[in-house]
Amino acid sequence: MEALRVCTRTRRWAAVRSQSHSSFGLLFDIDGVLVRGRTPIPAAKEAFRKLVDSGGSFQVPVVFVTNAGNCLRQAKAEQLSQVLDVEISQDQVMLSHSPLRMFQDLHNKSVLVSGQGHVEEIARNLGFKRVITIDMLREAFPLLDIVDRNRRPKELPPITKDCAPIEAVILFGEPVRWETNLQLIIDVLLTNGRPGQCVRTVPDPHLPVLACNMDLMWMAEAKMARFGHGTFLVCLENIYKKITGKDLKYKALIGKPSIITYNYADCLIRKLSESRGWGVPVSRLYAIGDNPMTDIYGANLYNRYVQNVHQVRVTANMAAGRALVGREEGPELDPVHESELAGSTTQSCKSILVCTGVYSRHEEVPCDPSVSVTETVFHGHRDFHFDPSLVEPTFEVQDVNDAVDLVFREENVSQ
Amino acid sequence: MEALRVCTRTRRWAAVRSQSHSSFGLLFDIDGVLVRGRTPIPAAKEAFRKLVDSGGSFQVPVVFVTNAGNCLRQAKAEQLSQVLDVEISQDQVMLSHSPLRMFQDLHNKSVLVSGQGHVEEIARNLGFKRVITIDMLREAFPLLDIVDRNRRPKELPPITKDCAPIEAVILFGEPVRWETNLQLIIDVLLTNGRPGQCVRTVPDPHLPVLACNMDLMWMAEAKMARFGHGTFLVCLENIYKKITGKDLKYKALIGKPSIITYNYADCLIRKLSESRGWGVPVSRLYAIGDNPMTDIYGANLYNRYVQNVHQVRVTANMAAGRALVGREEGPELDPVHESELAGSTTQSCKSILVCTGVYSRHEEVPCDPSVSVTETVFHGHRDFHFDPSLVEPTFEVQDVNDAVDLVFREENVSQ
Repeated sequence: MEALRVCTRTRRWAAVRSQSHSSFGLLFDIDGVLVRGRTPIPAAKEAFRKLVDSGGSFQVPVVFVTNAGNCLRQAKAEQLSQVLDVEISQDQVMLSHSPLRMFQDLHNKSVLVSGQGHVEEIARNLGFKRVITIDMLREAFPLLDIVDRNRRPKELPPITKDCAPIEAVILFGEPVRWETNLQLIIDVLLTNGRPGQCVRTVPDPHLPVLACNMDLMWMAEAKMARFGHGTFLVCLENIYKKITGKDLKYKALIGKPSIITYNYADCLIRKLSESRGWGVPVSRLYAIGDNPMTDIYGANLYNRYVQNVHQVRVTANMAAGRALVGREEGPELDPVHESELAGSTTQSCKSILVCTGVYSRHEEVPCDPSVSVTETVFHGHRDFHFDPSLVEPTFEVQDVNDAVDLVFREENVSQ
Repeated sequence: MEALRVCTRTRRWAAVRSQSHSSFGLLFDIDGVLVRGRTPIPAAKEAFRKLVDSGGSFQVPVVFVTNAGNCLRQAKAEQLSQVLDVEISQDQVMLSHSPLRMFQDLHNKSVLVSGQGHVEEIARNLGFKRVITIDMLREAFPLLDIVDRNRRPKELPPITKDCAPIEAVILFGEPVRWETNLQLIIDVLLTNGRPGQCVRTVPDPHLPVLACNMDLMWMAEAKMARFGHGTFLVCLENIYKKITGKDLKYKALIGKPSIITYNYADCLIRKLSESRGWGVPVSRLYAIGDNPMTDIYGANLYNRYVQNVHQVRVTANMAAGRALVGREEGPELDPVHESELAGSTTQSCKSILVCTGVYSRHEEVPCDPSVSVTETVFHGHRDFHFDPSLVEPTFEVQDVNDAVDLVFREENVSQ
């Protein structure tokens, strides 16, 4: 942790903006860094004034990487433009589900989607053509969802004509009425995509399950962190394990801290830089976030990954890189994904932890249980093992404005 | 398993009704034995015609022991009277939460209740005077329940004046909107009964938690078993473990297969027998059910318990008996409970498994996963360890009518 060194260091302002502002890029988390629920964090506006010129154009490639997913990128961009008083375009916004665009092998399959809000529209926008929602499934099979006694069918419905089988399950974000979603997802997995049918043996392997956003908790206005999609996944994994005796296996875990998400964000930074004609390739990323288990763990994991890739001098060969970083990288990628993600020129990804969200230096708000990252209390996802070195930020600062100042010092950018 | 022997045995009808029908009692499960969802099982009416005289009065003490709990005993008695075409009184009905009457040390405490339907009225009927529902808690602390974006407060509410702390949590049955109930129960446990406050360390021990009905699944009209309250408990236990790193500990697990539930049913049988002036004490119980993990496991566990009590010749000293039967008996009971439950004259409790519900001899309906009771797939509650001898019924028959015939043969009752 270089926090102290950073704070006491004498400032050197070198006028090197022109060459530096295109050779590094910034990844910003949103909740706990720029806003708390709907409430803007004061330091955010000040920080972003420093990132744009007098005309409001960004001088540095900036991408917003959030694990939120129950909305469209355009809506999130508009919300951010208001909060930050700076024009944000949707190609600067990355939601937890954005990398699903790359899973083209699933786009023509019949997929069950779970989440809230415009989840069907979101899935179609990502390229999925045969989308089945939980509500559609409830209507097709009225006898399945009966936890709520008031929603049980009043009289026995006619036998359902069998629908086309579901071929994959995509979990976009925390849904509403968890009992309904959990029951129907479990039914789909146990019946190999034909809910309402009887199952004699548990399918092995089960249908592909892809989950976006693994955050166990997140900071809103309440003093204590609130349940996130990761808490829903804890329920799903443990119900599946209890009923079948087997582990639920994910085809992909997407969103921070997965490598695929940072790799995708890296692509966006590169495209932004190219589109602005800044020439010099981006080689250094700074990821600013409030959550040690997602923002910091993910940035450090990606840093380890790009350095491994660099070492083996096969930048395009992600498989080699994945082999070196263990399980956490998410799914095996097919050739289409490989080409999408290849060509990164990034050599480092430094993590900057702010204290305005889930994490706090002080014991007061926010509360301890939400940031526990010890061997015994590990708030990361089941499939991401605890590694103390990965939850240790490169830098720790108070807020996002201090974070931008820090980056400018690191990059010798004059203000 | 004596099924074969029973089926091939030559029938002996001895006219011993007068002396026998008061020395044994019957415990009937409801779902999967008498009804499937709202649909009566045909054999039930026929079976009950044999248990009453021409005037419709029971000739044998009969108690209905169900893990259902989202209703009042009177309502369940009326429903059964209709289904069975026999007059059932509420003192013959035992719901999963009925033994809570005995937890008088909690009746004056402020308790949070979770469940659906008339859960507040049910709690008051059981003797609880200071009842707080999940909805009351949502209103008092509007910032806590925010998974459903449509139910989040539109603008920031005023700071909540602190309420009297909650002193215990009682889980009556599966609620609606699991995300809301799980979030608020976890908040109450982490804040030691003061949700909305900040927590620095996880309280240890946490507030008393009592849960009624541990059924993981149950059979309704659908081909596959549906989630029961036990599935909700799987979610709660695993979220608590994930957040705190510690096990959720129950003060009491009530409902089949817990010994306290069978002991309470034994009391009801005894009181019925006394109220009818049948004189001879009840010494043999037969428990008829469809679920190996609740009805059979529980009856066998109680059989082991009464035989242990018998052995040590201290019928009234339940503590000794509990010491012999291990963890599954539920909570330590205070003297009030002891006196309530003491005085059982029961010497055996035989289990009869029917094939009209969760369990089936055949591979078709109902489906396998719901009846798995192997070492690897154990559908009992976390706190009830797997014991092959406890899920093996004394007898197996096709339906409840065969079960009554079997008991009559065992008891030499003429028909």
